[in-house]
Formats: sequence, C-alpha cells, structure tokens
Amino acid sequence: MLSRIFRNTVLLPVAFILAAAPMIHADEGMWTFDNPPLKLLKAKYNFTPTQAWLDHLRLSSVRLNDGGSGSFVSPNGLLLTNHHVARGQLQKNSTAEHDYMRDGFYASAAEQEMKSPDLEVNVLVAMQNVTARVQGSAKGISDEAKALKARESEIAAITKEGKDKTGLRSDIVSFYNGGEYWLYQYKAYTDVRLVFAPEQQAAFFGGDPDNFTYPRYDIDMALFRVYDNGKPLHTDNFLKWSAKGAAPGELIFISGHPGSTSRQDTMAQLLVERDIVEPSVTEYLKRRIASAQAYAAQGPEQARQVGTLIFGLQNGLKVYVGRTEALADKAIIAKKQADEDDFRKKVAANPEWQKEYGIAWDTIASAEEKVKPEIKGQIFHRTDSRLFTIALQLVQYAAEIKKPDGERLAQFHDAGIESLKFQMLSPAPVTPATEKLYMAGALNLAEEKLGKQDAFVQAIVQGGDVDKAVNALVDGTKLADVAVRKGLLDGGEAAVAASADPMIVAARRVDPIVRENTRRMRDTIGSVLTPAGEKLGKARFMVYGKDAYPDATFTLRLSYGTVDGFPYNGTIAPPVTTFYGLYDRANSFGNKPPFDLTPKETAGLGKLDLSTPLDFVSTGDIIGGNSGSPVVNREGELVGLIFDGNIESMAGDFVYDGTKNRAVAVHSAGMIEALRKLYGADTLADELQGKK
Amino acid sequence: MLSRIFRNTVLLPVAFILAAAPMIHADEGMWTFDNPPLKLLKAKYNFTPTQAWLDHLRLSSVRLNDGGSGSFVSPNGLLLTNHHVARGQLQKNSTAEHDYMRDGFYASAAEQEMKSPDLEVNVLVAMQNVTARVQGSAKGISDEAKALKARESEIAAITKEGKDKTGLRSDIVSFYNGGEYWLYQYKAYTDVRLVFAPEQQAAFFGGDPDNFTYPRYDIDMALFRVYDNGKPLHTDNFLKWSAKGAAPGELIFISGHPGSTSRQDTMAQLLVERDIVEPSVTEYLKRRIASAQAYAAQGPEQARQVGTLIFGLQNGLKVYVGRTEALADKAIIAKKQADEDDFRKKVAANPEWQKEYGIAWDTIASAEEKVKPEIKGQIFHRTDSRLFTIALQLVQYAAEIKKPDGERLAQFHDAGIESLKFQMLSPAPVTPATEKLYMAGALNLAEEKLGKQDAFVQAIVQGGDVDKAVNALVDGTKLADVAVRKGLLDGGEAAVAASADPMIVAARRVDPIVRENTRRMRDTIGSVLTPAGEKLGKARFMVYGKDAYPDATFTLRLSYGTVDGFPYNGTIAPPVTTFYGLYDRANSFGNKPPFDLTPKETAGLGKLDLSTPLDFVSTGDIIGGNSGSPVVNREGELVGLIFDGNIESMAGDFVYDGTKNRAVAVHSAGMIEALRKLYGADTLADELQGKK
Repeated sequence: MLSRIFRNTVLLPVAFILAAAPMIHADEGMWTFDNPPLKLLKAKYNFTPTQAWLDHLRLSSVRLNDGGSGSFVSPNGLLLTNHHVARGQLQKNSTAEHDYMRDGFYASAAEQEMKSPDLEVNVLVAMQNVTARVQGSAKGISDEAKALKARESEIAAITKEGKDKTGLRSDIVSFYNGGEYWLYQYKAYTDVRLVFAPEQQAAFFGGDPDNFTYPRYDIDMALFRVYDNGKPLHTDNFLKWSAKGAAPGELIFISGHPGSTSRQDTMAQLLVERDIVEPSVTEYLKRRIASAQAYAAQGPEQARQVGTLIFGLQNGLKVYVGRTEALADKAIIAKKQADEDDFRKKVAANPEWQKEYGIAWDTIASAEEKVKPEIKGQIFHRTDSRLFTIALQLVQYAAEIKKPDGERLAQFHDAGIESLKFQMLSPAPVTPATEKLYMAGALNLAEEKLGKQDAFVQAIVQGGDVDKAVNALVDGTKLADVAVRKGLLDGGEAAVAASADPMIVAARRVDPIVRENTRRMRDTIGSVLTPAGEKLGKARFMVYGKDAYPDATFTLRLSYGTVDGFPYNGTIAPPVTTFYGLYDRANSFGNKPPFDLTPKETAGLGKLDLSTPLDFVSTGDIIGGNSGSPVVNREGELVGLIFDGNIESMAGDFVYDGTKNRAVAVHSAGMIEALRKLYGADTLADELQGKK
Repeated sequence: MLSRIFRNTVLLPVAFILAAAPMIHADEGMWTFDNPPLKLLKAKYNFTPTQAWLDHLRLSSVRLNDGGSGSFVSPNGLLLTNHHVARGQLQKNSTAEHDYMRDGFYASAAEQEMKSPDLEVNVLVAMQNVTARVQGSAKGISDEAKALKARESEIAAITKEGKDKTGLRSDIVSFYNGGEYWLYQYKAYTDVRLVFAPEQQAAFFGGDPDNFTYPRYDIDMALFRVYDNGKPLHTDNFLKWSAKGAAPGELIFISGHPGSTSRQDTMAQLLVERDIVEPSVTEYLKRRIASAQAYAAQGPEQARQVGTLIFGLQNGLKVYVGRTEALADKAIIAKKQADEDDFRKKVAANPEWQKEYGIAWDTIASAEEKVKPEIKGQIFHRTDSRLFTIALQLVQYAAEIKKPDGERLAQFHDAGIESLKFQMLSPAPVTPATEKLYMAGALNLAEEKLGKQDAFVQAIVQGGDVDKAVNALVDGTKLADVAVRKGLLDGGEAAVAASADPMIVAARRVDPIVRENTRRMRDTIGSVLTPAGEKLGKARFMVYGKDAYPDATFTLRLSYGTVDGFPYNGTIAPPVTTFYGLYDRANSFGNKPPFDLTPKETAGLGKLDLSTPLDFVSTGDIIGGNSGSPVVNREGELVGLIFDGNIESMAGDFVYDGTKNRAVAVHSAGMIEALRKLYGADTLADELQGKK
C-alpha cells in the first residue's frame, strides 16, 4: 500500500533539508524526467529511451491530489489508478444506502459515470530549471532570515509568472537539497468521474495484515474518466495496454510520484527522526486507530463512516513501524554513517570544497538541536477536523490574499490558490459525529503531550473541557454548508471578522499562534537549513557528479528494474502470483475476513482462467505516493499498476537494497481477466485493449 | 524436512552432556511417554489422556532406522511415513530402468509390494527406569575412567538381560543429562515392503528452496506394509484415519522420534558448538554438495545415483545454516545466558546443593576446553564410503564379539548386534563410481584440514595420493558382494586376519587409530562429562522439579499444540494450505523446477477438489527425526503427517519460541484426495479409511 500518508504534512519541518548519497545500486533511483539514467540503462539493459518515449510516458502520467499517481489508458480520458487511491472519493460518494466501498462501482454507460467531489488530477506538461534565479535572489544578504525571505519572494514571483503566462498550475520544487530549483507546470483537471471500482475486499484482499507484503492477490485498481469542458478528454498521451503483460526477467519502468524519502538526510537528521519523530508519530497513529475502531464497533453505519480513515491510519502505522525498524537496524545505520563519512572525507580532501561546504554538516546538526524542542508541537498541534481546517484556511485566506504574492504564507500563493479553493469548497459530506471524535481525540492527545497550558490547545478549549468545547464547536458551526464557506471566502476580511460561527471564532484565536510557530521555525531553523542544504547539494555535485537522483518530493519520477522474485521466508518469492493463489489464501483461512472472497469472486470460479497472472513484483525503486503508477515495458505499453511495496521495502525511506526491495503491482492480464470474467465489464476491457 | 542428518554421528562427542532449562513455554516440549505433561494439558486444554490412550499411541508409533518416524494406520500393517524417509529405500530399489524416485510407486495388489533392502522398524513396547542401577554401579569408584567403565559394563549387562529375557531390541537411554536412565525395549521388524510413494517432485515440490519453510504444498507421504513371518502384520495398535482431518485451532499431538536437541547445553558447550563445530560441519557439507553436483552434471544416470545424497546434504546444510544463525542471534544467546544464570543462582542459594552440584558448570567448561582440539578430528575423520564402513565394522566385530559384553565398543553390545548385522549384510547395491567420489572427497578434505601426516588419513593412503589409493581400494574390494561379507562375518578373527581384500587390509590399519581416539575421548572427556552432567541433571530436579522434558535423543516423545498460523513476512501464514496453492506456486514460477507440476498433477486439475487442505502447521515442538510422525487429535485419530518445520523452527535446537516455531504436516484429507484423484489408489485409500 503506497498512499502518501503523513509524509509532508507532519514531517516537513524535520525532513526539510537533504544530504547526498555516494553511489547508485542496481535498479536504484527515482529519477527526474530531465535527468533519466541513460548510462545505467544502456550499460545494464542495452536500452536507450528516446526523448519522444520519455515525453509520451510523462504526459500519460498523472498525479492525484488524494496522494497517489495514475496514468491515461485510453484516448478518451480513461485514467487508471489504485482502488485505494480512489477510495477517498468512493467514501465521499457513499451513503448508508449506497456503499460503493463494499459493493464496488461500474458505469457501463457514460451517463452513469460518477463525479468525484474534490479530486484534482495534474499532468506535468513543462519543467524549467530556475536554480540560478532562486539561488541568486539571496546572494549578498547576510541576515539569514532576510535571505530566506528574499528567496521565498523570488519563488512566489516565478510561480506567479508561470501561472499568469500559461494558466497552468505552477510549482517550484527543489531537488538535491536545494542544489537545483525547477519550475514544474501542470495541467490540472477537476472534473474526474468514476467509471469502475471493484469491491474494497477484492481490491484489498488480505487487509492490514497483507498490506506492505508480497505474495499478494489484490485487484487494487480503479478507473476514472477525466472530463474537459464537460466532455471526455481526448488525448494522444495514453498508454497502450500490453497484450501479455509483465513477464519475469523483463525490463520495466515505473512513472509516478514518490512522496518523500530521507536517503540524503545527514546522520544528525536521521537520529532526530529515529529518537523523537518516529515514537511520537507511532503513538499518535495507535491512539487514533484505537479511537476510530471503538467508534466503528458501535454499528455497521459507524464502521462505514470511519472505514477509510482506519484503512489509512493502519497503512501509516505499518509505514512507521517499518521506518522505526529500519532505523533500529544497526546495519542500516552503519551504512548511512559510512556513506556520510565517505562524503565528508572527500569534501575535506579538497581545500576549496572544505572551505565552501565543509561546515554544512555541523550547521545542520546544530539546527537539528534547535528543532528538537519544536517537534512535539509540530506533531501534536492538530485538530484532525475537516471543518476546523477549513475555518483556519478561511481566516488566513482573508488576511493573506490582500498581501503581495511574495509575502504570503506558503499555501496562499497565487499559483496554488485555485487548487486550494477547490478543496475548501468541496461538497463532500461532513459527519458531525466523526468530526467530534477526531477533534476531541487530537486535542486530548495534544493536551496530554504538551500540557493543559499549551497555547494551541488553549486557543480552542479556553480553559474548559476538551470534549465539551469540541461538541460546542461542531454542533454550532455552519461550515458544513458549502454556501456558508463560499460566503466567507467571497466576503473577505470583513466577513471573517464579523462571523460569529464558533469554528471561525476559534480559528481567529488559533491563527496568531500558528503564524508565530511558523515564523519561529522559519527564522531560526529554516533560514539556517536552507543555505546549509544548498551547500551539501552543491558539494554532492562536485564530489559525485550528476549521475544521481534527488530524494522524492511528490514530483514525477522514473524508476526502472526487472520483474523478479526475491529471497523471503527462507525460500524465494515468485515474480508473479495467479488467481489460484487468491483462492488458496482465502480457503486456507477458512474464507474469514480479511481473507474472504467477495460474492463475485466466489461466483467467478467457473469462469476465470485461474492461471492468469494477478500481481507481480519488480526491482523498481518506489515509495508511498507511487500508488497507482503505471508499469510499462520497453515499448511504453502498460504491463502493470503499482499498488504496494513488500515489507522489505519499508527501509526504502533510507536505503535501497536491490536484493530484496520490491515494488508490488497488479498485472495487466489480471486486470483484464477480472474486468471481463468477474465484473462483466467487457466494454471497458475493450476500451482498454483498444478493441473499440 | 526433518530427516535425521548428522546429529548423532558427527556431533555426539560435543553434545555428550546436557544441562537444565528453567521453565516450560506454551506448547513446548518433547515429553517422554512415562512423564506426559498432564498438568499442562489439563490447564491449557482441559484434556487428560488416559493411560490406554497413551499406550495405544505409543504402540502405533514406530521408529525407522533410516532416521525418521512413522505410524501404523491399518490393522494389516500399513505404515505411514514421509516420502523423504522412504527415499533411501526407493533409491536402493531403483535402477537406470526403474526410477521409483522420479515416477513414484504403487502396488495395487499384495504381490506387487516391494521389499526394502535394509529398513528396520522399531516399536517401543516397554520402558523401565534403571537409574538406580546405572548410577549405583559407579558409586565409590574415585578414578573417573574406572567409574565410567563400571557404568558402561552395567549398562551392557542390563541391555543384555533385557534382550535375553524378551528377545526384544534393548537400549539404555539417558535423559536429563544422566539424571535418569531407562531401559527401552523395541519390537523390531525387518520385512518392510513399499506399497505407495508419489513422485519425488510431488513429495518435495519446491525443492531445496522451500525445504524448511511454510506455506508448503507437498504430498510428502509414503506407505509401507510391515510383514511378520512373511505375512502382513495384524495389529490392533494402529491409528484410525480422521474423517475431516486437522482443523484450525484444534488440539493435536505428535508422537515421534526427535533426533537431538541442545536446549540444556551449558553456555560453554553452546559456544564451542557455535565457534568450532558449526563452521567445520558447514564447510564439510558445502564441499560434499559441490562434488556431488559436479558428478550429477555428467548425465541423468549419474544424477539419479547421487539424487538422494544431494537431497540429504542440502537438507543438512540448511539445518546448519539455521543453527549458525540461531547461535549468532544475540537475543537467543542472551536468553540462554539468563537461563543458566538463573539456574546457577538458585543452586548457589542452597548451601547443600551448591556443595553437591555447584562445581558442574566449571567442570564442563574445562572439559570443553579439552574437547576443542579433538573436534576437527571428530568431524573430518570419515570416509563416507559404505564399503569402507562395513570393512571397519567387520574388522572390529571379529575382535569385539569375543569379549565379555560389558567390555566391548559401544556399537557391538549383544543387545544391538542383530540390527547391526542387518545393516552390514544389506543387499542394497553399491555403485563403485560414487564410492570413489565420496571416499576421495572425504579423505582429500581430511588431508586438507588435518594435514598430510594425520594418522587416520595415513592409515588409508599410506603416504600416496588420495585418489589413487581410493581407486585401488574400491576397484580391488569384493565387499560389494554380500556373500563375501557374510563369509568374513562368520569366519571370525581368523578370516578377517587372513583376508587380502584391500578394504579389509586398510580397515585393519585404521582400527587401532579409531580405538585410540575413542579411548582418549572417553577417558579424558567422557569420564568427566558424565558425572558432571549427572550433577546438573540432579540439580535440575531439585531446583525445577520434574515438570520438565529431557533433550531429544531419537527416542519416542509426545509433543502437543494447536493447528495455528504464525507471523511471517510482515503478515500471517495460514494454518492450512490447499491444492489451489500448489497450482499457484507452480504457475507463478512458470512451472520451472523445482516448482514444476508432475504429469499426474497436471492431469489431476479437473478431478481434484482444489479447496481440499493439503499441508498445515501446528505449534507442536519437533526437530529432525520427527519426519513421518503421526499427528493425532483428542480421539487419537490421525489428522496429519509431520514432514518439516518452518524456517523459524531452526532455532529449536536451542530454544522453543511458540510464537513462531511451527511443525509442518501433510493433511489427512489432502493425502486421501491425492491417493484417490491423482494416483487412482482407491483401494489403498479405502484401507486407510477403514472402508474395506
């Protein structure tokens, strides 16, 4: 399971700056499309993708704002991704009467296709290196906070220009710890309609136990259709469906959006991560799972309401347990230390480099010391309430939108404002009971961890009881009504200031506290880490050249590898699984959840060719955020659909080990077999296979 | 795979003496039938087997001299064991024309049942505690070597009495490091005919990679029929076949012959094992596998000849790799140290115990220091030649048989002489080419490890070239002819002394060296370890009582547990597998060896109910030697057939961990399904199910 959970929201302050890695292992790397590993591919596979091949794959790939990846698979805008990436939209469209998670969904005709409340899809249409402009903006400014400010203004200016000139969503992304800055421009689509999703149980057979493992037997797919101006998007940039699909030993490519990795973190950063961040996040996740499970136990409708949440939290917990184990692994820590020692030694060996860059590690280490007391606040200052998040956005939006673009809080720059508004005005339903559950849980935990007198907590509960305060806020607010939100958004500062809505009132109290925390983090830590990271990035280019890939940043990357098993459980895991295995695992657990067959799977026994490949593994280097990534062959044809990594891949946040790190995908032949034999979706299968 | 490889032959000197364990974990233990864990069973499962229940299970259980276990499963002498236990006999009956390993075997009528050349089957019919007599025999003798001698004479006398009185095979076995001695008496059967064996590939699907792992999909069964006076043995002591077989969560029992464990070894012993024994044995196994594989590569007939050897060696290597990893596991070593510390502290806390037993650990530690220089000789003094082994037995037999029983070398006591002769006169064919391969390999390795001047090596090669000497011995000997052996056996000392057979001549030179090594080991080490071990055994009874089981000694034991999965690979392994899984794993590896289906399995697809349970796991505590053990339910009905342990069970030599140590068995329903649907053996299935 590779949903992008938590990585940037909670951990950004700590993972703020990145360091360098000395050498690339076989099939390692999440490469940017401007710097594909042509030498490695030529040497190992005697294959050189053309620029047209690369452009076609890039333009066929999409990023979903729900935290995953996908690809166009028909000239009529069909978009393939994972069921678990589509799950949020399925949940939002479901009700007590229509449970699309439980039952799945299939629109056999265009008019049945179901609009997603707040799904945005991005296609990376342009990339421009703006390193000189960004780095130059802070040149000669000796005050660190002012230098950072200047850089941020320049970044805002570049994105605004990009947006104004093209109308495209424009982001500045930094790679190699700030060694490079790029303007990434996306075509954004927001009319995205669901065409097909299997039953949750067929997509996620094996549930939480099997999550992040392999062998697997999951049909973790969903198909949307992207509309443009109310009509299906017509495009040449789609992936042809491979007739036979991925074959063992075959060279494959993965094009997707890995969320974040920490492979170039310095040791000082890794140790803070290990000792402070991981235990706190793990505890937070466990507490939240327990409270959601208690709620779900009240009845089937309650269970439905929190199903997606529990699913995501359990996924996140497994990630954090894996990260914790990786950082507790002495061999991994020793390797990271050896890599850093090598890097520092090589920098030190050149007096000029040493003078220019040698200080960076110590600078980062002392900044990390300053980060330490901030971390608990960063993690536990949260409400987990959708409505409160919107309330705070409304309050801050009104104030920020008046300022020059370069001076605003990061999330309110012009370039991203459309996407932000799309989220703020989402018509997805809000359940008061779960709002209360989540918000009270978060605030009680914050109070426990940070103390009753914590300013953030106090701004909301004002000395009273958390549960009472939360009930009053949720019961009193009108923000569940999109029209109310729209009124405040359009009404500007006056409307927000005049609002007596209790959520808005509370958000007005919270706003200055959040601003102060952000300012302090930026002025005392970000302002130090940014130039220090840039030093490391430049040093890395000096020492190791540019035959390297940057850490993951939820931007489009190209990975490659072969379809291959791996040593596991004292034996070897097979490169592919088949439908036989699905029925084996179900029967071997007596068909008990989470290993139960769906009624369609039970009925499909006589129809399916059970030897059809269902899932497979490859050595491609991926991480959370790659969910839904297409797997393609040398011809650029779609042979699979990434949906998970094996348990051994959990260490991939820090190191890639090609002997056992594997990406798990649904096989293209398995998807067709399921569509035709289990779901009677021949029309759809025909469209995918280009038969109509 | 649980064949008993190497445990007693190579390692006996080191595992000579055993220490105590402080507490019993859930489902832990290989219990003697005189001391079943009634309290534990009552407390955990509310089940108390009656004496009749225990007697019936014991008398239905058998030990096979090929190193495994089995059980009677029909009133007409049908004996169920593993294919891999029967494999040696299959190999010996196979030729280039009839390859029963490749093709399997089924005798649909009595006259087709195929006699085994040298298989002996033992049933434990009587057990008698002779501790007082054995321990008393050395009382008051202060010279350690003389005390040991007195004890050995007494042991020989007891076994001879037992044999003379009853005609039964009579062995003295020591438990609890010599805390107890028992006379075990067996009814022995040597007319044992093969009735059914599947193809080797069906029995051992997954080959060496899947060996010692689970999930598994193996039909690792074979059926013999025991004959008595030329007629099928009629017996009431057989296990009824369970209609539905093992069910998840069910209480089960395993009755079999675990070969050896080292759970009560002192730390001093474990460290010698870890640092000296394991590396040498591992190297020996790797070298021997490589040479056998090179021979097999010469052609299909050569591959057939060494198939069983390679199979056994690879199995042994996996065991040794597992043992090495277990002893390299800091958590396991820490646990063993903590157990020993606890034991020593409790002994020390009682002045009387401390005076009587407290010295034992240090005595053992200093004896282990003396063992160290002997170990390489113990491991590498070997010829791996069947004919040379017989030659040395003939030479020693002639000398020993004349002596009073109590003064003979251990293997020539009257009580065991019949079984020994049965082996020496086995008509199983001998292949000169493999004799040369094995013997030259062993002697070259011995020369490399122990030096050219090593007395054992020199006694055989006499300063010449190993390969030439071996060729001369094998080409020149007539011992492949059973009549020649019989002549020497009957001819006595004079015949042996007069023989010019080069193997006999060489064995006459080797004999004094082996005797001297044995004497030195016994007088300087055994004589110290035996009383020290006895002290530990008695101390253990004092400190922990007798609610404990002794280390395994290839004697009949009762284990118990439940049918249950375990945490594996980041998820959970199922309690049972099904035939679906067999076809999944075969297809997922493209039906390539060792994951290929047999022609019968391919043809069986339309006939089999694929949801039938095939293999299953339970928490029962087993080790090598348990292969072929019956698994029975509360009613004493056969629900399965042990054939392996999971990879996590490899640490079971030293510690039992009930969370993940699992015994792997073929399911009774799977065996019937295979017999009926794959092999058309309805008659046999009917006999098993009591339908005729």
